[in-house]
Amino acid sequence: MEKRYCVRDSRIDEKTISLQETLFHNANGYIGVRGTLEEGCPEEFDTMRGMYINGIYDIAPMKQAEKLCNLIEEKETMLNVADTQTILSNFSGQRFSMFTGKVNAYERVLDMEAGTTTRNVKWEMPDKRIVDISITRMTSFAEKSLFTIDYQIHSEDFAGEVCIESLQKGLVKNYCNPHDPRLAGESHMHLKKKDGWMEGTKSYLVSETISSELTIVSGVAHEVYVNEKKMDEILPEYIEEAHEMRVKFCIPMCPGDTIRIVKYTVFQDSIRRTDCREAVRACMDEVCRGGIADYYEKQKQYLKTFWENSELEIRGDKELNLSVCFNMYQLLQSAGTDGCSSIAAKGMSGEGYEGHYFWDTEMFMIPYFVLTNPGIARALLEYRYKTLPQAEENAVLLGHKKGALYPWRTIAGKECSGYYPSGTAQYHINGDIAYAVVLYYKATGDWQFIKEKGLEMLLQTARLWMDVGNFYEGRFHIHCVTGPDEYTCMVNDNYYTNAAAKHNIEQFLKLAKRLEKEEDWNAFCSIHKLTETELKEMKQAAERMYLPYDEKLKINPQDDSFLRKPIWNLQKTPQEKFPLLLHYHPLHLYRYQVCKQADTVLAHFLFPEYQSKETIENSFLYYEKITTHDSSLSTCVFSIVASVLGMREKAVRYLGDSAKMDLLDTHKNTKDGIHAANMGGCYMAIIYGFAGVSITENELILNPYVPETWEGYTFRISYRQSLLRVNVEKEKCTIEVLKGAPVQLEIYGEKKKAVPGKPLRIEK
Amino acid sequence: MEKRYCVRDSRIDEKTISLQETLFHNANGYIGVRGTLEEGCPEEFDTMRGMYINGIYDIAPMKQAEKLCNLIEEKETMLNVADTQTILSNFSGQRFSMFTGKVNAYERVLDMEAGTTTRNVKWEMPDKRIVDISITRMTSFAEKSLFTIDYQIHSEDFAGEVCIESLQKGLVKNYCNPHDPRLAGESHMHLKKKDGWMEGTKSYLVSETISSELTIVSGVAHEVYVNEKKMDEILPEYIEEAHEMRVKFCIPMCPGDTIRIVKYTVFQDSIRRTDCREAVRACMDEVCRGGIADYYEKQKQYLKTFWENSELEIRGDKELNLSVCFNMYQLLQSAGTDGCSSIAAKGMSGEGYEGHYFWDTEMFMIPYFVLTNPGIARALLEYRYKTLPQAEENAVLLGHKKGALYPWRTIAGKECSGYYPSGTAQYHINGDIAYAVVLYYKATGDWQFIKEKGLEMLLQTARLWMDVGNFYEGRFHIHCVTGPDEYTCMVNDNYYTNAAAKHNIEQFLKLAKRLEKEEDWNAFCSIHKLTETELKEMKQAAERMYLPYDEKLKINPQDDSFLRKPIWNLQKTPQEKFPLLLHYHPLHLYRYQVCKQADTVLAHFLFPEYQSKETIENSFLYYEKITTHDSSLSTCVFSIVASVLGMREKAVRYLGDSAKMDLLDTHKNTKDGIHAANMGGCYMAIIYGFAGVSITENELILNPYVPETWEGYTFRISYRQSLLRVNVEKEKCTIEVLKGAPVQLEIYGEKKKAVPGKPLRIEK
Repeated sequence: MEKRYCVRDSRIDEKTISLQETLFHNANGYIGVRGTLEEGCPEEFDTMRGMYINGIYDIAPMKQAEKLCNLIEEKETMLNVADTQTILSNFSGQRFSMFTGKVNAYERVLDMEAGTTTRNVKWEMPDKRIVDISITRMTSFAEKSLFTIDYQIHSEDFAGEVCIESLQKGLVKNYCNPHDPRLAGESHMHLKKKDGWMEGTKSYLVSETISSELTIVSGVAHEVYVNEKKMDEILPEYIEEAHEMRVKFCIPMCPGDTIRIVKYTVFQDSIRRTDCREAVRACMDEVCRGGIADYYEKQKQYLKTFWENSELEIRGDKELNLSVCFNMYQLLQSAGTDGCSSIAAKGMSGEGYEGHYFWDTEMFMIPYFVLTNPGIARALLEYRYKTLPQAEENAVLLGHKKGALYPWRTIAGKECSGYYPSGTAQYHINGDIAYAVVLYYKATGDWQFIKEKGLEMLLQTARLWMDVGNFYEGRFHIHCVTGPDEYTCMVNDNYYTNAAAKHNIEQFLKLAKRLEKEEDWNAFCSIHKLTETELKEMKQAAERMYLPYDEKLKINPQDDSFLRKPIWNLQKTPQEKFPLLLHYHPLHLYRYQVCKQADTVLAHFLFPEYQSKETIENSFLYYEKITTHDSSLSTCVFSIVASVLGMREKAVRYLGDSAKMDLLDTHKNTKDGIHAANMGGCYMAIIYGFAGVSITENELILNPYVPETWEGYTFRISYRQSLLRVNVEKEKCTIEVLKGAPVQLEIYGEKKKAVPGKPLRIEK
Repeated sequence: MEKRYCVRDSRIDEKTISLQETLFHNANGYIGVRGTLEEGCPEEFDTMRGMYINGIYDIAPMKQAEKLCNLIEEKETMLNVADTQTILSNFSGQRFSMFTGKVNAYERVLDMEAGTTTRNVKWEMPDKRIVDISITRMTSFAEKSLFTIDYQIHSEDFAGEVCIESLQKGLVKNYCNPHDPRLAGESHMHLKKKDGWMEGTKSYLVSETISSELTIVSGVAHEVYVNEKKMDEILPEYIEEAHEMRVKFCIPMCPGDTIRIVKYTVFQDSIRRTDCREAVRACMDEVCRGGIADYYEKQKQYLKTFWENSELEIRGDKELNLSVCFNMYQLLQSAGTDGCSSIAAKGMSGEGYEGHYFWDTEMFMIPYFVLTNPGIARALLEYRYKTLPQAEENAVLLGHKKGALYPWRTIAGKECSGYYPSGTAQYHINGDIAYAVVLYYKATGDWQFIKEKGLEMLLQTARLWMDVGNFYEGRFHIHCVTGPDEYTCMVNDNYYTNAAAKHNIEQFLKLAKRLEKEEDWNAFCSIHKLTETELKEMKQAAERMYLPYDEKLKINPQDDSFLRKPIWNLQKTPQEKFPLLLHYHPLHLYRYQVCKQADTVLAHFLFPEYQSKETIENSFLYYEKITTHDSSLSTCVFSIVASVLGMREKAVRYLGDSAKMDLLDTHKNTKDGIHAANMGGCYMAIIYGFAGVSITENELILNPYVPETWEGYTFRISYRQSLLRVNVEKEKCTIEVLKGAPVQLEIYGEKKKAVPGKPLRIEK
């Protein structure tokens, strides 16, 4: 990897500053820190100053306007942990801010190989003196508890005392916007300070979440360098106030001098540790011993491996190439890797959707990790396994006699949907999780995971379908659920849901059959009270699953009554009325043929075996006309299916809409956080779409083509412990096995075997 | 009327006391006063101390757990107005209470001929002295602003000073119960004191509702009698505090003495008056001039006429007879008669359902008033006409391009449903109101009302159906609405809704045709922009309205997918799981064939012409098996249809369940208020059911039978300005025209003419 992966931005204004907070956030799947300015913004700016820990939540009330039995009335919500971002510098009484004095030069840089973000400011003080301030931040992948700020001041012509104050704030609150349904409507305090102490130059703060009573301990330490020399003798002043701890360094400075403060923050929490105080101390000692340079190096090494495993280079469209790499990097930043957490809709980059995990992870992100970083995919599935008991409780709340119903949105496993018709009623999440389990297994062959955890998940999700559906006139029907498309709710026989349920049950039965041959089978049946009768019923349901089909249009209707409704006139809908959900009462939307996002079309990508190519094509063309793509999870799916159907121009157009969504802020809300699912979807559009990757039980299938406007592309994927490099050009395609055993594959319909050391060259 | 209509109760305990508050409440359609004890209850008692004014509301926030476009976020709510109920009596330091000393005798009496309630207590003080306390309350029908308390103390052996304090309290709050979805969950203060003053012996209080800013002025005056002699010379002490005004009389008393305090309360409000202060003064002067005896007499006269017009005597079942009369009297007490108000679900007897008006009025109460008191029926429809503009605004909120959508629950006309799937989505309320307009017209022939108001209501409701429905394969369908049965929500082609819409449109077209012949027609068309094309489209929609029918079962399915769902096993559902809505998540309920209440069966009663008798019978028998009657609006409908189908035994059984619901507190929540709709339904079961009354365009139809367990029954009804008395016996039936012109009717299938002075005798 020689090429540098960098994103740069040098705009300064209120809107861009808050957008940059998202784009230049640092995260490592455990800690997330928005790219807020150390010194703060003018008060009237709409910024979201946040530091988060994945999986840490508080419980907030969520009163229903009208009480009904078992409706959810409290939710888990992501919270701001102790804020250690603040560093204030004062030059002979002139406090540094991008909005006083003059900024002569400014640039933000995200370096995706170094794993850091840097802010460079040439600042002219009110008294015209000039300093260069350079601030580099890192959330360490090597030591996930660690966040660093490397704060450097170089004086051009300033002479005098610079006072640098570094804070650790315990009194923080969440961002709120009562006008946007996608953000929390109320600003609650979720944290209280329990304790705080100093140990030498290190300060520690113990906080507790107010309702969920989780403990978070943060530790802060500083190092001071003057002209690259470490100055342990510069002792700061320590100030401890009610809710914050301050450290203040005052250092004389001459033109040409460089002062550097390295601030280490370490977090530990009670979800993952029994003794957080001890853990945080030990971790801080370790970190200080290692020092910043060591962690910079480890970060580089980690990312070197990352890019080696997930290389994706598009030739002929640099901008797109950068967007795709940016997206992949953001997914890495967002992913919980410890089995205690997953990936929030906004990753760890902002508070949109309150830090909740949705189906997004399984449907749009795991398909990416499965091919590039299967260990992370496994960790994400472990999280779902860990929360299986809550999903079982959720099923009981919904009146089911057996099985598990995964929550539509959650952090620690409890359902947090306030509006169940387009929340809890999206039962398809069960099928989505099942799909991800199976995909992971097919791609990795990790039978151990299936035996220990996956099969139980498949059983409990399959059981739910048996309880929610019923036979009617010989077919198995599922009533009163909501498919992925939230512009039609609580319908009967949603095609996507029924297909996902069929797949869920089929795959459970198939893997159960494999286990039957092993001695663990009897234990499994007895633990889970699984009988022959139940297996037989499941088989029947899967076989007889009703998949709606319309004879006249030769498409799969989205649900049993979808085609009887009038078609929404999208041409006549004024531009300012999009997204429709913000301008029309849900009941009105539900009464039309209009889709927020891919629904049946997504089913066609996931379960192509259930329909003929002709039906898939008809469906695609039908839904294309009535889909608004008001959801960010839509265009990528349309792109994939367009590829599968050979509609290459469309495939490229749909990808174009999706790949740059955050970098160009096309949805105008990236300031609230990245669109993580869309980032995964964008990867999928290329790999599962253009490259035509799919994974069957025993084979890797490829069907790559180069879009008209590209020159070619290269990507690496993991398949069953082997690492493959695929180079696609207009006329030929080369497949190399870089690591691992030979790989059985099918390319352009032909069976081939790729062997290490012998690149497989296929001419088109 | 010689027979006395009286309800008596002499139980004392916490539960009965709060039940008695409902059963012995006083109301006149304007003021409602719960039968709380003047002297109060022990603090731990769960009582609801309330005085209400019909149509007066405050606005309360109703936050949605998840914000969606145009969901309702504030609601109108009935409030407690200034409390003038409190009277405390103190016998030489011993304060009267039913829960100190000893109650040697106690009785509550509702006298439905006198129009009063009386509480008689023989009280033994802690020091063993005995007084008889008798308190009579009246809300005057002659002067609707007037509420009186006639407080009499007779000393048996008490000698000493009795001090009587009478209060007017401005600081009141609403009852709340956060655990019951049918009551407000939060206890808000809705009233603030604006002003207060004394004028001679009269005190006045001006209050304003906090958010809706409505003004209510109350005035209080007292008269004192000692041994029946009015004692103007006994001057009380006046105490004015921040939020209340007290009047204190201290009078020496000897054994044998009777002291009587008459307390007059007069209310005026800014909905009905521009100058409430002046109005309340004038009214109070008038009342004091007349005096209590005069108003008692007027009350008696009013009720004499009432009972003459609505006589209903059941011979052979005294208890039932009393229940039915009680129900009729409660409906009279509850009905707003000024066009500014309607009838709340609980009348004016309590705060259940927050004083909201529902379809209950049109479907269960207007059919009663139409036959007994058509003036009240008209006033209730005037209220709907007055709120037509709000219904038009509501239609816009729901995305409709034309027409009006009446709110599912409201006070002043705005939608107040917090959970729209079983609230706002019950579009059938439009058809229900249209039905009541037509019924009123058929029964009274009041063409003036139709021309001035009714036709516009029919047009705007009909227009909504045109906008909500659509043609598909030649039939007109209505998608995504909720029928009366709240155990299935947001369905397509609900039979009841489609039938009601068909009727709504048909009747509009029919009455429009009549207006076409008059010169007002052109003006009507031009004001309402009504064109030939629109009329033609309406005609088509009505003719082609899809009414679901199942060939196999030969019934009308409740909606297009109802029969495909599994049947709920009611036999296996434990008794403590009813009502189901309190024990199962709505989504679970929606997935089964199980009904909370009559839905298709109600349609069969209202629109029998749409189906053959055989289909109606099949439907009845089918739905009977899956209906829980968890709603109080259900058994009465089943009783009527059972009568129509000749299932007499069932008809009686269903009535029995319904008639005594409140008197026997069979639903265990009468303490929160009466079940007004069920009371109307009970009347309907007898008159529209047993007596087989129905009204076609030009005729009154009767088909009376005597249930097995009765001896016979007599009832009076109004029809086109004539008053009829119908006496039904086992072998014969007699019809007399007591007032008005001859009446064309059909009895047992034969056309007859009833002529005044010549009783029509029909042998069976």
